[in-house]
Amino acid sequence: MTNKRLTIGLVQHACSVDPAANIETTIQGIRTAAERGARLILLQELHASRYFCQTEDRGNFELAETIPGPTTRRLGRIAAELNIVIVASVFEKRAAGLYHNTAVALDSDGSIAGRYRKMHIPDDPGYFEKYYFTPGDLGFTPVDTSVGRLGLLVCWDQWYPEAARLMALAGAELLLYPTAIGWDMQDPADERARQQDAWLTVQRGHAIANSLPVLACNRTGHEADPSGQTDGIHFWGGSAAIGPQGELLAQAATDTAEVVVVDIDLARSGRLREVWPYLRDRRIDAYQDLLRRFRD
Amino acid sequence: MTNKRLTIGLVQHACSVDPAANIETTIQGIRTAAERGARLILLQELHASRYFCQTEDRGNFELAETIPGPTTRRLGRIAAELNIVIVASVFEKRAAGLYHNTAVALDSDGSIAGRYRKMHIPDDPGYFEKYYFTPGDLGFTPVDTSVGRLGLLVCWDQWYPEAARLMALAGAELLLYPTAIGWDMQDPADERARQQDAWLTVQRGHAIANSLPVLACNRTGHEADPSGQTDGIHFWGGSAAIGPQGELLAQAATDTAEVVVVDIDLARSGRLREVWPYLRDRRIDAYQDLLRRFRD
Repeated sequence: MTNKRLTIGLVQHACSVDPAANIETTIQGIRTAAERGARLILLQELHASRYFCQTEDRGNFELAETIPGPTTRRLGRIAAELNIVIVASVFEKRAAGLYHNTAVALDSDGSIAGRYRKMHIPDDPGYFEKYYFTPGDLGFTPVDTSVGRLGLLVCWDQWYPEAARLMALAGAELLLYPTAIGWDMQDPADERARQQDAWLTVQRGHAIANSLPVLACNRTGHEADPSGQTDGIHFWGGSAAIGPQGELLAQAATDTAEVVVVDIDLARSGRLREVWPYLRDRRIDAYQDLLRRFRD
Repeated sequence: MTNKRLTIGLVQHACSVDPAANIETTIQGIRTAAERGARLILLQELHASRYFCQTEDRGNFELAETIPGPTTRRLGRIAAELNIVIVASVFEKRAAGLYHNTAVALDSDGSIAGRYRKMHIPDDPGYFEKYYFTPGDLGFTPVDTSVGRLGLLVCWDQWYPEAARLMALAGAELLLYPTAIGWDMQDPADERARQQDAWLTVQRGHAIANSLPVLACNRTGHEADPSGQTDGIHFWGGSAAIGPQGELLAQAATDTAEVVVVDIDLARSGRLREVWPYLRDRRIDAYQDLLRRFRD
C-alpha cells in the first residue's frame, strides 16, 4: 500500500470583540501554516467572534451569516490563492429565526466542498448553545475535498463515539473538530487538568477505535462573561493532531496563539485496519439499543 | 449525593501449563486482594490455562467446562468465604461443539450472579479465537451483584465503544474487562509502546464517554507458540483501574505478577454526568447507520 501524505495545519488564537480583526488574525495564521507546507488547515470553532454563547443575548444573532456569505467567500479566495483546503466554522443563518453551528470545507479551487451542521448541541452554564443553534439535520456525512474525505464534526461532538464511528463508516479519512472549550478557573487545578486530559483522551479514543487521524483546533485566551455573573472562560488551547493509533503527533500550548503544522500519512489507517480489524467484528445484530435514549 | 465507595482488586499473573497450579495462583491473589480490602475482584481472561488460542488445536476443547462447573464452584466458595464478588473468566462448554469465552460474576453468597458471553470475537495470527468461541448471544446486559451493577465485557470488546455505551445505557456502574493481550516481540519497541498505550487509551475513552470507572485485568508473562511457528506472545500485563474522567487510578507492571487494590467512589459517575450531560444530547434520531456494516 502506498503512502498518502498530507500536511495539515491548525490555527489556534484568541479572539477579540472585533470580528474584522479576528478574521485578519485567522488569515495570518492560515498563511503561516500554508508557508510551512500545510495543504489542509483547520480553524477553531466560531473563529470570527468571541464565544458569544456565554450568555443568551438576542443581539448576538447579528453575528450570524449565510453560507455562502462573507466569511466563506473571503476564506474561499484564500483557499484558491494558496491552493489549500480550509475547514472553517461559521455561525450559520439559514433563515430568519433558524441558525446552526456549522463547519464548512472550502476546497482548493475556492468552492464550498460541503458543510456539516453540529449535531450534538451542549447547554451548560457558560455554554448556552441550545439557545443559539438548532441541532444539525444533515446527519454525520463526510465532505469530499481535493485532499480527501473529511469527517467534519464540531466541539461537543468530540465526546460522542457514535459521531466518530458514523463518519468512519461513511469512509472519512480523518476526523476534524473545530472547538471552543475552556476552564472555569473556580475549579481547582487538579480538576482542570483532568478535564483537559479527558478532552484529549476521548478524541484519542476515537482515533484508535476507528484507526483514523483526528484533528482538533481550540481557541485560547480568556473571554469575560458579558453578564458579569461568572469569571468567564479561560479557553485551554491545546489544539492537537492525533495519529490513527491515538498517538499525539503535536499539540499547541494552552495559553498562547500557535500554528501547528504536522505531516500525516493517511494510508496508515488502511494498514492499521489490516492488523486491528475492528470493523470486521462489529456486532451490528446486537447494537439496536444504541438507538434508545436509555435501556430502561 | 452520597458516596458509594467500593474497593476493587485486580489479580494479574502468568499462567503455567498446569490448570491446577493456575487456579491456586489465582486464589492466592484473590486472598491477597481481599486482605487488602477488595470487595470486588476481577481476574484475567481465561485465567485457568495458558492462552490456548495461539494455535487451532482440537485438544484444547478439553480445557472447557460448564457453568456451573469446577471453576465457578471453587471460586464461588471463595467468594462466600471472603464475602466478596469475584469476576472470573471461563472457557465455557455450553454443549457438544458449542463453546463461549465467558465472564462470570460470583456473588458474595457464593451464587452465580450472572454471566456475559464475549460478543466481539477476534481472529488474528496468534489469537485464533473464532475457532474456539461462538460469538455471545446474551447481548450487552449488565449483571446485578451485591456490590453494584457490573458491565462485564471481555478483551476484544475493549476496542468497541458500542459495547461500553450499551452497558452504560443499561445502567452499568462500572465496566470490567478480563483480558489476554500481548506483544509480538518482532514488532519494534516504538510500535509495542503505541499498541499498549492505545489499549489503555481506548478504555480511558470509554470511561470518559460514559462517566464510568473501567477495570481491566490482563495476564503477564511469555507463552510459547505450541506450533513453534512464531516466537509466542509476551503478555503485557498493565492491568488498570481507570476513573470516570478517564484518569488512571492504578496500573500494574508490565512483566510481573501483581495484585492491584484501589478504592473507587461509584457515586462520582452521577455527579460527573450532571456536569457533563452527554446522555442528554445523544442524537438517537441520527444513529441508525450504526446498525450497518459500512455506509456504502
